[in-house]
Amino acid sequence: MAAPSMALRRVLGLGAVLGRRSCCSKRPLPPDLVEALRAVVGGSNVSTATAVREQHGHDESMHVCAPPDAVVWPQTVGQVQELAELCHRHRLPMVPFGTGTGLEGGVNAVQGGVCFDLSRMDSISELSLEDFSVMVEPGVTRKALNSHLRGTGLWFPVDPGADASLCGMAATGASGTNAVRYGTMRPNVLNLRVVLPDGRLLHTAGPGRQPRWAPGAPGRDGMGPCPPGYPTHPPRRRKRAAGYDLTSLFVGSEGTLGFLTQATLRLHPLPEAAAAAVAAFPSVRAAVACTVQVLQAAVPVARIEFLDEVMASACGRFSGVELPAAPTLLLELHGSRHGLAEQQGQTEEIVQLNGGGGSGLAWAEGPEERERLWAMRHRAWYAALALRPGCQGYSTDVCVPISRLPDVVVETKRDLQDSGLTGPMVGHVGDGNFHCLLIFNAQDPAEAERVHAFTQRLGRRALAAGGTCTGEHGVGLGKRALLREELGQEGLDTLRSIKAALDPHNLMNPGKVL
Amino acid sequence: MAAPSMALRRVLGLGAVLGRRSCCSKRPLPPDLVEALRAVVGGSNVSTATAVREQHGHDESMHVCAPPDAVVWPQTVGQVQELAELCHRHRLPMVPFGTGTGLEGGVNAVQGGVCFDLSRMDSISELSLEDFSVMVEPGVTRKALNSHLRGTGLWFPVDPGADASLCGMAATGASGTNAVRYGTMRPNVLNLRVVLPDGRLLHTAGPGRQPRWAPGAPGRDGMGPCPPGYPTHPPRRRKRAAGYDLTSLFVGSEGTLGFLTQATLRLHPLPEAAAAAVAAFPSVRAAVACTVQVLQAAVPVARIEFLDEVMASACGRFSGVELPAAPTLLLELHGSRHGLAEQQGQTEEIVQLNGGGGSGLAWAEGPEERERLWAMRHRAWYAALALRPGCQGYSTDVCVPISRLPDVVVETKRDLQDSGLTGPMVGHVGDGNFHCLLIFNAQDPAEAERVHAFTQRLGRRALAAGGTCTGEHGVGLGKRALLREELGQEGLDTLRSIKAALDPHNLMNPGKVL
Repeated sequence: MAAPSMALRRVLGLGAVLGRRSCCSKRPLPPDLVEALRAVVGGSNVSTATAVREQHGHDESMHVCAPPDAVVWPQTVGQVQELAELCHRHRLPMVPFGTGTGLEGGVNAVQGGVCFDLSRMDSISELSLEDFSVMVEPGVTRKALNSHLRGTGLWFPVDPGADASLCGMAATGASGTNAVRYGTMRPNVLNLRVVLPDGRLLHTAGPGRQPRWAPGAPGRDGMGPCPPGYPTHPPRRRKRAAGYDLTSLFVGSEGTLGFLTQATLRLHPLPEAAAAAVAAFPSVRAAVACTVQVLQAAVPVARIEFLDEVMASACGRFSGVELPAAPTLLLELHGSRHGLAEQQGQTEEIVQLNGGGGSGLAWAEGPEERERLWAMRHRAWYAALALRPGCQGYSTDVCVPISRLPDVVVETKRDLQDSGLTGPMVGHVGDGNFHCLLIFNAQDPAEAERVHAFTQRLGRRALAAGGTCTGEHGVGLGKRALLREELGQEGLDTLRSIKAALDPHNLMNPGKVL
Repeated sequence: MAAPSMALRRVLGLGAVLGRRSCCSKRPLPPDLVEALRAVVGGSNVSTATAVREQHGHDESMHVCAPPDAVVWPQTVGQVQELAELCHRHRLPMVPFGTGTGLEGGVNAVQGGVCFDLSRMDSISELSLEDFSVMVEPGVTRKALNSHLRGTGLWFPVDPGADASLCGMAATGASGTNAVRYGTMRPNVLNLRVVLPDGRLLHTAGPGRQPRWAPGAPGRDGMGPCPPGYPTHPPRRRKRAAGYDLTSLFVGSEGTLGFLTQATLRLHPLPEAAAAAVAAFPSVRAAVACTVQVLQAAVPVARIEFLDEVMASACGRFSGVELPAAPTLLLELHGSRHGLAEQQGQTEEIVQLNGGGGSGLAWAEGPEERERLWAMRHRAWYAALALRPGCQGYSTDVCVPISRLPDVVVETKRDLQDSGLTGPMVGHVGDGNFHCLLIFNAQDPAEAERVHAFTQRLGRRALAAGGTCTGEHGVGLGKRALLREELGQEGLDTLRSIKAALDPHNLMNPGKVL
């Protein structure tokens, strides 16, 4: 991948990082290190091939590729521990890698080092239908988990567009279209098995509850044999007041504090009935105001997604669905048969009060029909890219309080137009979270500069409205400057103290977040 | 308060602390310190009187009184900062104090020092009906907030028995009867204004959103004037992926990381309709199994509280309500008129399947009638104490996964009987959380010893079932040994690293949690 232009670097907030990389020569891998890595995981699970390193040096964003010096594929948590201990001894940077579907350069090895590709650790275990919980390793994606759950009556609702690794989603603090009802990753992670930078093993909500822990046999985690009488499938608890909340600390830590090698997730019962609908509105403000009113009426809406007229028309065209070029809401309701009808009535009334939905909402109740609708929504990124073939895309990710959402969206829309940028808008508006998918010619410095200026104004507009510079993509490389403005010096200092306490040599995913 | 007997110390897990206190002479207050405290807050807001110090040296538990050397009443966050800086300079322990209604000795000044009574900071500000949020200072209790909210259509549902300070509830990670539907304090705290041990000010979800920040005037937090055009009442956001989750770190930190001087809370819409009922069951197992089934049927129950037959009869007698001496569930449902009827139907069916509720449930729908029921429930502690006048009480607080709850409750009940102890059981069973209110004669070493052995067995039983040693009371003084078993050495070491990073001189509420 070619080095980005100066203008593009500014868009990505990469100046400092790239400067550091190109000025300071990073430490070369110590001699024999590759051999030592091979001794842990076997020869076929280590690579220093350029193509492999480059493939692991970037995510789905346009942050410039920064390849690690080596890639390893551990198969067990014990191997992750041994590898971490080895890298720790040599003071080598370590970068966790799941599916590489992030959007803020979280996996880019900006200081080189060893990339841990965890995709070959892919067990699903300890499924408890009674406690609505399951354990997954980092190789398990959200779609794989939901396939595994088919027929159980349970599902895992958090759905960023990509089919990401669930542990990666925990690391990013991801969310998606269902968060307005089911929450983001944060309340849906119950426990994490973490390998700390020096190789020690931490269970954020306590150990002793490992998967497949056979009585009398050594545990996979090196915890020794199970004590007699210990239940082999102990279910997970939900509520605790025992010490600081380490689970919440590691969710959203973006690989900077340790490796998430297993997550215990909270599952949800599949709704008895569901219905989805599309509603076009006369204006952006009307669509967003409708969202705010649906929430304030306490309709337990499952999904409420906004597309501006550019996005609606692009999505329709890209997925072959007829969709008017108008500000649009995609809605989904979940409930009992009875409850659903009540929700539908309330929603229709509010949609119509805001001039939306034309002569009434056509509800899609069958699973295929609904799936088609959401597949179209999840392809929004590619639909946006198709607007200007050959151009690059960058997704903003601000989130503001609901009451400020109409103003902020309308101002942002005006700013986009004034800046002459292509940036269709799409948003999880029920959370106050929206994205401008900026499609621009990275070879045109003037356009890249306008994109940079726009993203900075948008970030500051969100902060001034009491919002955040990132609702779900994380800080990664691109949001570090805005993070300082958002948290203030004391906030940033506190994050740094915690990072220094848990990773004193700054080996875990260095150069990210802080 | 007299020093506790050796047997009682064992019950309370106080051996080490008391030993340390009586062996090592704690540092006396430096000369002139009291004068320096007075210079900050004024003479009437500092006390070293024995009665005042003793009143601040204990909570509602039976942990032995450990008075601080001085008590101060700051009125503003700036004063808290100045006082903290002063104590920090002199390396004096600091103990935050709200209403003193804790149950694990969280406020006991086991190493002396200065108690910060924050009850005179009692502003309620930035109420946003659109964003369902409000800011409260530590002097605001949950009942005071709900009175303030009367007529707005909103309420704050977290309700531990006591009328505790909301910031104290955040510090403890408290919950109560509504947690099964509305969550504990954790998801209901959106931002915290924290004074760090050295006096610096941290906003866990970012600063710049202070209450009553007048444009052009210096902010109360010393943040300087508001920038032009800055909204004076910016509402709060809900979702963010910006850096480590500091809010969750401070919720449940029990005063060991800093002073919580303001909390931004999430409010909830009052339900359109509510109904409560009492159901008696043929056995403990039937009552608990009914709870599990109600949850598994995804009935969005608002409250589901268990009383064993001893507790039911004691509560009825204490509050003058007719209640059969049988294992009992108190239930409350919230919803729309329509939805409520559906929930009532589902609940009745499950209750009857488990042999409960006699010839049908009598639903109380009026607010007074429901309030009478919950007032009775909230007086359970005093009803238990009345069973053996002159005796002392200690409340256990384990929490286990729902699927294990029936077995754990039945085993615990048998253990209580085998141990010959008085320990009526009461529980937020929808969360898997229950308490044995142990009423015993602290002067009888044999009985105190039996209580100690029982609480240890109960804690270990909960841990073995994948549960926690504390669902809502916190660790405080009494649960430190069990916390180590729950988290393991790596977990405890991680908590200690964080504590050392944020409070390197171990000045904030020393001797607690860790």
